[in-house]
Amino acid sequence: MTAIDCSNRAETRATLVFGGSRDADVRFVLGLGNLENLALLVRRGRIDVLAADMEVERIRRAVGGRITVWTLSSFRRAGDRGLWPAFARFVKGFGLREVLVGDRFPLGFAQALRSRGVKVSISGASVFPERRRKDREQLRAISQMQSVAVRAMRAAAAIIGESRVGQRNRLYWRGRTLGSEELRAEIERVVFTQCAVAEGTIVSCGVASADPHEPGVGPLFAGQPIVVDIFPRSRASGYWGDLTRTMVKGRMNGKLRAMFSAVRRARAEAFRRMRHGVRIRSVYRAAARALEAAGFATRMGPRAEGFIHNLGHGVGLEIHEPPVLGDVPGCLREGDVVTVEPGLYYRNVGGVRIEDVVVVTRDGCRLLSRCPLFGEIP
Amino acid sequence: MTAIDCSNRAETRATLVFGGSRDADVRFVLGLGNLENLALLVRRGRIDVLAADMEVERIRRAVGGRITVWTLSSFRRAGDRGLWPAFARFVKGFGLREVLVGDRFPLGFAQALRSRGVKVSISGASVFPERRRKDREQLRAISQMQSVAVRAMRAAAAIIGESRVGQRNRLYWRGRTLGSEELRAEIERVVFTQCAVAEGTIVSCGVASADPHEPGVGPLFAGQPIVVDIFPRSRASGYWGDLTRTMVKGRMNGKLRAMFSAVRRARAEAFRRMRHGVRIRSVYRAAARALEAAGFATRMGPRAEGFIHNLGHGVGLEIHEPPVLGDVPGCLREGDVVTVEPGLYYRNVGGVRIEDVVVVTRDGCRLLSRCPLFGEIP
Repeated sequence: MTAIDCSNRAETRATLVFGGSRDADVRFVLGLGNLENLALLVRRGRIDVLAADMEVERIRRAVGGRITVWTLSSFRRAGDRGLWPAFARFVKGFGLREVLVGDRFPLGFAQALRSRGVKVSISGASVFPERRRKDREQLRAISQMQSVAVRAMRAAAAIIGESRVGQRNRLYWRGRTLGSEELRAEIERVVFTQCAVAEGTIVSCGVASADPHEPGVGPLFAGQPIVVDIFPRSRASGYWGDLTRTMVKGRMNGKLRAMFSAVRRARAEAFRRMRHGVRIRSVYRAAARALEAAGFATRMGPRAEGFIHNLGHGVGLEIHEPPVLGDVPGCLREGDVVTVEPGLYYRNVGGVRIEDVVVVTRDGCRLLSRCPLFGEIP
Repeated sequence: MTAIDCSNRAETRATLVFGGSRDADVRFVLGLGNLENLALLVRRGRIDVLAADMEVERIRRAVGGRITVWTLSSFRRAGDRGLWPAFARFVKGFGLREVLVGDRFPLGFAQALRSRGVKVSISGASVFPERRRKDREQLRAISQMQSVAVRAMRAAAAIIGESRVGQRNRLYWRGRTLGSEELRAEIERVVFTQCAVAEGTIVSCGVASADPHEPGVGPLFAGQPIVVDIFPRSRASGYWGDLTRTMVKGRMNGKLRAMFSAVRRARAEAFRRMRHGVRIRSVYRAAARALEAAGFATRMGPRAEGFIHNLGHGVGLEIHEPPVLGDVPGCLREGDVVTVEPGLYYRNVGGVRIEDVVVVTRDGCRLLSRCPLFGEIP
């Protein structure tokens, strides 16, 4: 998974990454947890890593011989203020005239380099474009997380199915009110038992679900949309899954049913078009058109309504990574792993979102896991 | 917890933060999860936030009237490449001549501001110095996590106590080999049931524990150090705890016993000195001296041995935050919440580390939770 193709990198400059295990580029190269404050210098066929002395042995054990690991203390000087002087000396020591960095590279590190005569350029491309195309092992890691999400989603649907409708349409389960908090706890418990972590799981009901990222609070009600969005991350590999279903206990009303049906149609339109080489914008627009054709207009702004987010996003070592599936330039490519998540949001109804993860292939796209759409739950 | 004192901020410039819920400064101000790509502009008595349109309502509901939330779409122009032009327009719109940022501020954002004539200066101080001094509510949040860690540590000690010693000193529990992985899973399960998340929990045994951040793998053995380092984060508040104990099933050998005793003495020396106004360097050096006086010298470099890390670090919305307790300038202050974690690491023995979290007071320091030292476990 960390096989990096460095063959097209020039020798007079290098790509520079700063970060820790939480940063996808570092995780991609080293695959280790519990790391902070590392520099990776990537040139043709060679990677040099600068790390705190006490981390050096652990990193050396984990990586192959192609990666050289250096100790921070050997670049420190008395009187240094903060980390940046030592990190800048490390880079400068390779005699490079220029380093390419991502646009979120730390300003302090950039200034320390520039003051030592090293040019710092933001690379228009991603630092590791290799991360976008997922190989077999990465597909397996993401599929595993997607299966974990499916398992948790099935558990959520089963609980809504087992619940009974009480006073003022509230749901009750095992003798108690069923709230967003309880359902979220059950979902995250299932994810936890599958060696993954889910946090921020969305279980939002009724008009609250008109905010796509509202986590949800309080009782769940029959006849109203319950948006369940589960995004587990593997504790071992760091890869993510992402899955959303919209469930209704009992029957949907007319508006909700029309929204649900429009979102399904948008999803089908997207799936039908997605394949290697297709323009991303055309996929996004096909989904948006399907929603508009069903009478669901979008209005942006502070109280945005309609199809108010992108059609999807890349998934990998970050929950949101390139490519964005929006009204943007660029094409889908074989090996892209992206969510497809059309949704509709109206203040007086709530939200309907259906989200899956697919891998783009030569001639189409393939779901990484299958999950029922649920919809109405008796 | 988000009461920010802006009274000493000048009006011709502002402090600028970019980030999401994972970033402590953003979490400190907004307290919300599931957020990405926000700008916070902080001036005297006023905070302005720029967020994606679909997040604006949720943020407005969560924050008081003193914070104004702006929609990203109103700053976007056709032809923008990436996020930075819109974010820079937002800042520029306030007529500021200069913004102060942290040293990890994204280079791309800084360049977009500079190209529009806004000076970007790295503030020597932390962006929110208010984060360092913990108030009662923050102390409660961290203490809660520390208590969760204690509960999990007690569970770990109980398992080691229940385990029996088998062939070649291996530990067996409930009829199976007890490995790092099993003990870690039990620890993290306990943390999970307490509404918190622990990841990267260290359970390293024998010579492997000579690497302070080695997570540990494979069977646990009697007579060897088992370093258990648990750092739970609250799912609700985002605050961290951090606790380490070193346990030995059965008896310690002479060297190990001497290391354990030296680390305890270093801990006591640190506790005895810590109070408001004391020089951090003097606390660090007192602990280091206690270890050296017991015959445990430190050597840095790639195969570092001895007391090879700092004495501690601040804990709050980040697991590692200011102040560092090292050989550094500066003084401890009332309200500092820091780990105290002397440790010794030798390649042929392994590691001994004892770590607690304390709050610094006017005239001393106070443990946020009490946990037995364990040591030898029969």
